[in-house]
Amino acid sequence: MPRSEFELIEWIRARSQGANVPIGIGDDMAAFGTDGGGEILVTADMLLDGVHFVTGRDSYPLIGRKTMACSLSDAAAMAAVPVAAVLSVALNHEIAWEQVQDLWKGVQELAEEFSCPVIGGDTTSWKHPLALNVTLFAEARGISPVLRNGAKAGDAIFVTGSLGGSIRGRHLRFQPRVREARQLAQICPLHAMIDLSDGLAADLNHICDESQLGVVIDADLIPVDAAADSFESALSDGEDFELLFTVADSCVELLQSRWKESTPITRIGTVVEKPGIQLRSRGGTMRPLPPGGYQHVIGN
Amino acid sequence: MPRSEFELIEWIRARSQGANVPIGIGDDMAAFGTDGGGEILVTADMLLDGVHFVTGRDSYPLIGRKTMACSLSDAAAMAAVPVAAVLSVALNHEIAWEQVQDLWKGVQELAEEFSCPVIGGDTTSWKHPLALNVTLFAEARGISPVLRNGAKAGDAIFVTGSLGGSIRGRHLRFQPRVREARQLAQICPLHAMIDLSDGLAADLNHICDESQLGVVIDADLIPVDAAADSFESALSDGEDFELLFTVADSCVELLQSRWKESTPITRIGTVVEKPGIQLRSRGGTMRPLPPGGYQHVIGN
Repeated sequence: MPRSEFELIEWIRARSQGANVPIGIGDDMAAFGTDGGGEILVTADMLLDGVHFVTGRDSYPLIGRKTMACSLSDAAAMAAVPVAAVLSVALNHEIAWEQVQDLWKGVQELAEEFSCPVIGGDTTSWKHPLALNVTLFAEARGISPVLRNGAKAGDAIFVTGSLGGSIRGRHLRFQPRVREARQLAQICPLHAMIDLSDGLAADLNHICDESQLGVVIDADLIPVDAAADSFESALSDGEDFELLFTVADSCVELLQSRWKESTPITRIGTVVEKPGIQLRSRGGTMRPLPPGGYQHVIGN
Repeated sequence: MPRSEFELIEWIRARSQGANVPIGIGDDMAAFGTDGGGEILVTADMLLDGVHFVTGRDSYPLIGRKTMACSLSDAAAMAAVPVAAVLSVALNHEIAWEQVQDLWKGVQELAEEFSCPVIGGDTTSWKHPLALNVTLFAEARGISPVLRNGAKAGDAIFVTGSLGGSIRGRHLRFQPRVREARQLAQICPLHAMIDLSDGLAADLNHICDESQLGVVIDADLIPVDAAADSFESALSDGEDFELLFTVADSCVELLQSRWKESTPITRIGTVVEKPGIQLRSRGGTMRPLPPGGYQHVIGN
């Protein structure tokens, strides 16, 4: 049975709550409380049918889950604490009411897990495929946001988890590394950090570009996921949503001894003065690694 | 010539600046400074090709302008001060680079006019039509946000500007009433306010629903825009983006005597205990006015 956007908004409103939400769903703007720290972090992620997920193949709860997870992963990449989010949806006219509810439940599941309520948004519909946008707000809460440009020559480079083959399912079910990022930053200063969304090589390149340095990566050390087709896939597949970060070499021992989380952390290389990414084989041979990775192409 | 999303991001980054932007475009999250008031207001607006604008008919600068203007209008509806925004775009693969630049320029024009910098966002592309999402942040700055639920029986109902026929062009070029809202609230307490996006009758209905009251509107007093086809069009056309607000009857004289802005304000009716919207003709005859207005239909 077709329903109006207002019915959907009421349905969502009845399911929404948040401890620190002065104005929730249903007015011209929503509001969230801040810790008074004077700075709000914000990220936006637009997810599109046929690009980031495929309706018909992927379930609606997992599509909703991924939309929220991508933005939570950005908060992790700054070592920030997510506090609230807003969700905009462009629904295809043909979507069933139950599918819309499933989509919402997927979003809500992670929102609750990360205490990051969805406080508002926008509901629209059209004859084209599903598009979703989450904008998420976070606070520093005592840990300076970790940028991409802070790497220093001599830093050790680490990744969390394992890489490659995310498309086989992990890209829909990954766990945003919010807690891990906070704990890492509490053990030792993180110089630079990014979440792996474009692929290891491409995201290493972002760190290199912003920090105006290069890296040497040890091929043998890269933690290849069991789902990866090949070693190359761990280098270039996107959407791992693991953390890539650098710390001073003098912190490596401390970090490894104090790390008690179940998510593994692995040192994969070193930041160097020479620009570019060099991949070192077991025998010591170096080869340059092009950034690669998925890029949205624009204009003709 | 096709370009990558990273080229676009760099192009935008070079054109972005803001006085109070600790982290701008180019990292995992952006950041904006707050006044320490402890509360951030937020609105999201998703605009879709074929629904809110039509590529090929509407120019790209005006499409960009409207996207930003809709969110600024939401800030106006709370009497809040816009402070920053993020923009997500799903570009059709066939869009030309110059068109993307034009889109951005339209967004940027209003961002600058309202001192509301675009500090980040997301760039994606697909084979389907253009979709845009702006999420905008605002602060109360000494004026409590004006909600939809604050109307009181006996309140006078006002609108800014004139209504109807927005589709003839005003929906792309309207001026968000941010300054007007702040000035109104400084003259006298605004009990309830909304911006007219769904149409006068539909938006009156939102105020009635949220405030659990009714309204009597004087047909003769409604300011019909010269572009409106008919009187009915002023009642039901959407996207006027004027302000609809209520004030205590005792404030009406003060408000009208102190109002010096060029944007007209017009009293169109009165809040009453009896639920629903009644339209009173010159002769005094009453007829109920159904909410009507555009609604996105969801589910089948």
